[in-house]
Amino acid sequence: MTADTFRIGLAGLGTVGVGVIKILQTHADMIAARAGRKIEVLAISARDQGRDRGVDLSAYEWTENPERMAGDPRLDAVVEVMGGSDGPALSLVETALKARKPVVTANKALIATHGVRLAGLSDQTGTPLKFEAAVAGGIPVIKALRESFAGNRLNAVYGILNGTCNYILTEMRRTGRNFLDVLEEAQAKGYAEADPTFDIDGIDAAHKLSILTALGFGVKPDFPAMKIAGIRHVSAGDIDHAAELGYRIKLLGVARRLDDGKIVQSVEPCLVPEGHPLAAVDDVFNAVFVDGDFMGKEMLVGRGAGEGPTASAVVADLIDLVRGDRGPSFGVPVDDLVTATWAGPADIISGFYLHLNVLDKPGVLAAVSAILRDYNVSVEAMIQRGRNPDQPVSIVLTTHEARQADIDGACAEIAKLPQVTGSPCVMKLIEI
Amino acid sequence: MTADTFRIGLAGLGTVGVGVIKILQTHADMIAARAGRKIEVLAISARDQGRDRGVDLSAYEWTENPERMAGDPRLDAVVEVMGGSDGPALSLVETALKARKPVVTANKALIATHGVRLAGLSDQTGTPLKFEAAVAGGIPVIKALRESFAGNRLNAVYGILNGTCNYILTEMRRTGRNFLDVLEEAQAKGYAEADPTFDIDGIDAAHKLSILTALGFGVKPDFPAMKIAGIRHVSAGDIDHAAELGYRIKLLGVARRLDDGKIVQSVEPCLVPEGHPLAAVDDVFNAVFVDGDFMGKEMLVGRGAGEGPTASAVVADLIDLVRGDRGPSFGVPVDDLVTATWAGPADIISGFYLHLNVLDKPGVLAAVSAILRDYNVSVEAMIQRGRNPDQPVSIVLTTHEARQADIDGACAEIAKLPQVTGSPCVMKLIEI
Repeated sequence: MTADTFRIGLAGLGTVGVGVIKILQTHADMIAARAGRKIEVLAISARDQGRDRGVDLSAYEWTENPERMAGDPRLDAVVEVMGGSDGPALSLVETALKARKPVVTANKALIATHGVRLAGLSDQTGTPLKFEAAVAGGIPVIKALRESFAGNRLNAVYGILNGTCNYILTEMRRTGRNFLDVLEEAQAKGYAEADPTFDIDGIDAAHKLSILTALGFGVKPDFPAMKIAGIRHVSAGDIDHAAELGYRIKLLGVARRLDDGKIVQSVEPCLVPEGHPLAAVDDVFNAVFVDGDFMGKEMLVGRGAGEGPTASAVVADLIDLVRGDRGPSFGVPVDDLVTATWAGPADIISGFYLHLNVLDKPGVLAAVSAILRDYNVSVEAMIQRGRNPDQPVSIVLTTHEARQADIDGACAEIAKLPQVTGSPCVMKLIEI
Repeated sequence: MTADTFRIGLAGLGTVGVGVIKILQTHADMIAARAGRKIEVLAISARDQGRDRGVDLSAYEWTENPERMAGDPRLDAVVEVMGGSDGPALSLVETALKARKPVVTANKALIATHGVRLAGLSDQTGTPLKFEAAVAGGIPVIKALRESFAGNRLNAVYGILNGTCNYILTEMRRTGRNFLDVLEEAQAKGYAEADPTFDIDGIDAAHKLSILTALGFGVKPDFPAMKIAGIRHVSAGDIDHAAELGYRIKLLGVARRLDDGKIVQSVEPCLVPEGHPLAAVDDVFNAVFVDGDFMGKEMLVGRGAGEGPTASAVVADLIDLVRGDRGPSFGVPVDDLVTATWAGPADIISGFYLHLNVLDKPGVLAAVSAILRDYNVSVEAMIQRGRNPDQPVSIVLTTHEARQADIDGACAEIAKLPQVTGSPCVMKLIEI
């Protein structure tokens, strides 16, 4: 078996790269039995050669320029875990595919941004491009969509795709503290980056969702088309009000197909009913919920990030490569991916949650209600807590199904009312 | 593409077989795009040719003896969905593999009983044998264990593997009714068979678990070695008491590896803490929980039976075949599967739930407590409801971690006490 070792070049020695080395070192024999050949790291590359990463790297060849791995005839595949949608990661993956060198990557930004072009190169050269680790870490959702659910026409794919946001929202709910307090704590614990923008503003989840949408619906990933809202504006009060109404607030990536074939695609905080399986997915856990016409509803839950889970997904892709995995990166050849018609505010129908800050003056409820009525929005439940004449109070309400465009129109008018302070906070209700 | 159609013979036209036909008819073009070739049914076989099954079968060749499909050179694969661990199903699969005809089966009894021999044939002849649909219907757990989690050494695989039992236990909890009442209702609704033995006595779940154990731990399936208990003896009272103690009763298939390498494998009703993700999996849903050394804990939830979900899994296997799926049936070649050392009562340590029916006489609690103490069993919580001198009452208790052998010994002595009526009911507590 050793004569036939599968040799890889590993570009990137951050958390994921180090995890890959640990798994391949720890489970060398088990993986050889499962894959049918030994898998060994031959060459490594990273920005800083000197740093101590807690693993023994002495057996591996150091490569200053990772792109050189693409042309190294001794390598059976390259693993790209450097990150970044452009720059060295893109050069390496592109050069490798052109040189017919199979690629495994954990790089969601790269695939969300350049996935169609790279998968096209993969199709043309017959060279596998695999990216299980790019979405939801150790949860095998790419494989599930690409292979396990391939006999289904999907109605919806949605889920909790960012562990940092889920941790923050969970802690806010448990402790009643506000967003900034909990963010600081998450940073101290290492659950949030020093610059948390990518996570808390929904960009990371949006990269992942655009990959899921492509796989689930056979459309070209179109990251710029996505509606993205993060969790900065979710207040402790919103979480309280949601609980009182029987919901939990989760940052969800949602892709679903409307009857007319248009596709809704958005990342935004949503209200999930307490009985929904996603409502119980807390802390840093991720979960993906899939609804297909024959399979029905399924959910996959697990750790969406971190050294072990993400590296586990990279190694699974490597074992697939060794076993002879074939089939197109996005489930169908790139030429068969269609350009989606994205649903707009006039197409999207949902129940909504509205939170208004108003001055407690006579007539404010009547004014709000009249505007909602004029936009065909019907109220399902309303909370107004306490009385505080001429001072700020909150009005919270949920609506029956309404058109997004109508809600947007109504909120624009409501914001202009003299008694209303600040912008209304609007979130969708997700029903089972 | 039509010149290169992938043609299958379908043996069995029950729920699953009809589902496979419906999916292949409904999604012919989509599946062709995903698989790279059209997939078409060429020949069918079933016991009763005349029966109306609600699908148009006129395009398919009727085959009286399904085994003849194995030698039909026009067929690229056979799908076995007849069921039964022996007889025609076994003959067909065996003959097909010998003739190098790839096989997809949904037959858990067949794989649990003859899996090693059949996978051995598959290895020898290089002919794929696939059985995603045999365990947990539409939940892709076979693929997850065989491929996605292949870089991990697993600590445990356990789950809710029988929808009928989960429905019955869920309804018992919701309505407070007893087992036989709810079973009758489940039969009327079609959730339980007229002869429900296979489901409610745990046989069906045990077939599935022995397949999961083999895949998860690289051991030969050993169905006769499994400890199996069904749900007949779970009372409405047990469900109540469990709820009061913060648990839900679920029929679980549990496989886990002990520190000394022995493997625990059992199907039995267990108490799952309300915070555990499996506790919220209700009705006919199935779920599998997997704990691996790098990936951490993951859970897959979905429909474990029924036409659509099970057929969806069969079609996924077919698409894999067309794409050129390779790799051994049980994740490693059969020659690498080891003979497990199964854990016995002296090895298994767990918290336990005990329910005793006693006559309310002075000294009964003292006698029970003394026996538990003598067997090194320490009580965590105890419920004794009401007083009813000289009449039957229930004593319910949970223990701290204790050895199964000690619990068994203590219960045998407790059963001999003059104040105790009937056998103690014992169930394990599953911790997160």
